[in-house]
Amino acid sequence: MRQNALIAGVGMTHFGKHLEIGFKAIGAEAVQRAVEDAGIRLQDIEVAYVGNAAAGLVTGQECIRGQVILRSLGVGKIPVVNVENACASGSTAFHQAAAMVTAGANDIVLALGVEKLYSEDRKKSFSAFSGAVDVEFMQAIMESLQKSAAASGGSAGAAGAGEKRSMFMDIYAAVARAHMQRYGTTVEQFAMVSAKNSFHGSLNPRAQFREALTVEQVLAAPMIAEPLTRPMCSPIGDGAAAAILVSPAKARQLGINKPVRVVSTVLVSGWDHAPDEDGAGEVSSRQAYEEAGVGPSDIHVVELHDASAPGEILAYEYLGLCPKGGGGRLVQDGVTKLGGRQPVNTSGGLLRKGHPVGATGVAQIVELTEQLQERSGSRQVQGAKLGLAQNGGGNIGIDVAAMCVSILQA
Amino acid sequence: MRQNALIAGVGMTHFGKHLEIGFKAIGAEAVQRAVEDAGIRLQDIEVAYVGNAAAGLVTGQECIRGQVILRSLGVGKIPVVNVENACASGSTAFHQAAAMVTAGANDIVLALGVEKLYSEDRKKSFSAFSGAVDVEFMQAIMESLQKSAAASGGSAGAAGAGEKRSMFMDIYAAVARAHMQRYGTTVEQFAMVSAKNSFHGSLNPRAQFREALTVEQVLAAPMIAEPLTRPMCSPIGDGAAAAILVSPAKARQLGINKPVRVVSTVLVSGWDHAPDEDGAGEVSSRQAYEEAGVGPSDIHVVELHDASAPGEILAYEYLGLCPKGGGGRLVQDGVTKLGGRQPVNTSGGLLRKGHPVGATGVAQIVELTEQLQERSGSRQVQGAKLGLAQNGGGNIGIDVAAMCVSILQA
Repeated sequence: MRQNALIAGVGMTHFGKHLEIGFKAIGAEAVQRAVEDAGIRLQDIEVAYVGNAAAGLVTGQECIRGQVILRSLGVGKIPVVNVENACASGSTAFHQAAAMVTAGANDIVLALGVEKLYSEDRKKSFSAFSGAVDVEFMQAIMESLQKSAAASGGSAGAAGAGEKRSMFMDIYAAVARAHMQRYGTTVEQFAMVSAKNSFHGSLNPRAQFREALTVEQVLAAPMIAEPLTRPMCSPIGDGAAAAILVSPAKARQLGINKPVRVVSTVLVSGWDHAPDEDGAGEVSSRQAYEEAGVGPSDIHVVELHDASAPGEILAYEYLGLCPKGGGGRLVQDGVTKLGGRQPVNTSGGLLRKGHPVGATGVAQIVELTEQLQERSGSRQVQGAKLGLAQNGGGNIGIDVAAMCVSILQA
Repeated sequence: MRQNALIAGVGMTHFGKHLEIGFKAIGAEAVQRAVEDAGIRLQDIEVAYVGNAAAGLVTGQECIRGQVILRSLGVGKIPVVNVENACASGSTAFHQAAAMVTAGANDIVLALGVEKLYSEDRKKSFSAFSGAVDVEFMQAIMESLQKSAAASGGSAGAAGAGEKRSMFMDIYAAVARAHMQRYGTTVEQFAMVSAKNSFHGSLNPRAQFREALTVEQVLAAPMIAEPLTRPMCSPIGDGAAAAILVSPAKARQLGINKPVRVVSTVLVSGWDHAPDEDGAGEVSSRQAYEEAGVGPSDIHVVELHDASAPGEILAYEYLGLCPKGGGGRLVQDGVTKLGGRQPVNTSGGLLRKGHPVGATGVAQIVELTEQLQERSGSRQVQGAKLGLAQNGGGNIGIDVAAMCVSILQA
């Protein structure tokens, strides 16, 4: 399908721990910012796609999440479709919004991603994502990870009863160890990802963490799951991000200034492939490049799903930014740092900007849109004309459950 | 938007209490039946929309619900969009699937609605839908209902600590009392709805309840919320329903036998209107009739959202099947019973076929498709060429949060 949706405006909240602000208010703030940025009125929105992953488990607001937010802004009557794809909920909302514009079904569509994870009841915040996997299947996976870590002397599975961490970090740790064994990737290279993204985050007023860390500081931080230290793991957080998508005709009618074009957006689910076969990461990015008519080397700026530092290195590879196994070298050579040839996660990424799950996919679009409109201030990638966003969610068998890759053009 | 999607096949499970079968298996069964009915293969599905409301709270499978079901069938790689709109989750999945076909984005789309509410932990089953409202706003509503019921001698709010019922039945009870006061509707007329639907359900092998009840039996049943007795309230249940939507070109290519046309499908959200102004019910049905180019009297068979018996009477009115206030008379005159001029809920409706929340909207499509294809056996409405499905979900302010109306044509 040849995409034709345009991004007319974007907006997001600060990401972080916001016990003082609720689910509705945080979503509403992002919508208002995006509507202002687009120069439209709230009542111009024709349909809304709202991505959220965990409001049900954390806040009790399981159903009609989008309607509740929009009503607080006085918006009703329009179709509101609440979508969910774990950590890829936001990109799924964006993908659907773009599809509706491309299909000619709507002229002005809101894509909103929102998450409220911090709760006075800390247990709820940390257990919310036990449902982002096939809950039956995951029992078996966790047992096998524990055995393999025990055999290799690693710490996965050795978590004390009081330790709070996502089981996803156990999976990432296992993947990291396999990458080190196979390709010679080093723990220092993982730390370089975190240090780079912390530098980018230090330049981003909306980032959850603003401190720029050295590689040494990353390595010296507390161990979460061997070999991952704390700054190699994305935090939980609260936040929301929104984008207004419009048709080309509507953009002209509204006189939108410098709209950003969605040249491709591809959503795929994982499947049971052999470990060495291409998975959802490779397939989604290949389709996205084809749809856009560009290749990996044409991309000027990337926001990708660094839920962990090794996750960023793996993404370099399946996005084709480097050959398989070359991800560690890519970050070490400074290619993906601001000022390098192909900056990645100029926002600070999930690791430092933060990862309010349902908001993440739309927040990537916010960062890229601003980059392509040359309004990223000290984080600006000079001359950026093509940006790529990659957002993955959940686990199914050995693959990610949902993977969305979108390419935007100035 | 002129719709052009065709329904190539439908399938559903038995609705009821199925402690022996899990969330994945129940969803998979409906998908397999629909795929067989359409005469396609599982791998022909290009994209899946999966409606579910409460798996997170009941089963812990909060995220990636559709992927988990489809993986159990060996289906991966395709985009899977998990959608949620409380009791209208199923119709939202159907609405999105039809939109994608109409838009030319896809040729073969799966719409699946699935719910697993019965759990060994009964508390989870009954508390799951406390999130289907604006959770903050609902505090105020419940307090006001309790005051008004106390003033009128009703029982709302007098539930003992051990009583298990949905707060939605308190809302329906208040609405029922208002309808009685204003229009002279009688409790016997509410009971006639339940008796009629129990007769229809007695003819439906997939219905949760098969016993045909008399009006007297309905009235003599235990009181849930004055004036609603138990058979005037829909039960909770487990079940799934699926539909395969295809483009006209694909239907010809596949040689689909008697596909049913989606001539309109409209989704709206509620809003803060004055009590006497039209709400989501009136607006969605009016749009659906306009889109289809037909009027209420042209419809031969209706599946509507009888979450409670007064809910069916209200729906008669906002769907235009009778004038405002005439709903009680309509059922009393036998118009909406099998053999009457305009049979409603030939499946048994939510009251008797059952109401596995996320599945309900798609199950309505299953019933209508079979009616329009003249394969409903003893429930067949002779000569049915036009069917209407109406599915509502959640509450927002004084209106329903999501309302979907679809019109199908033989």
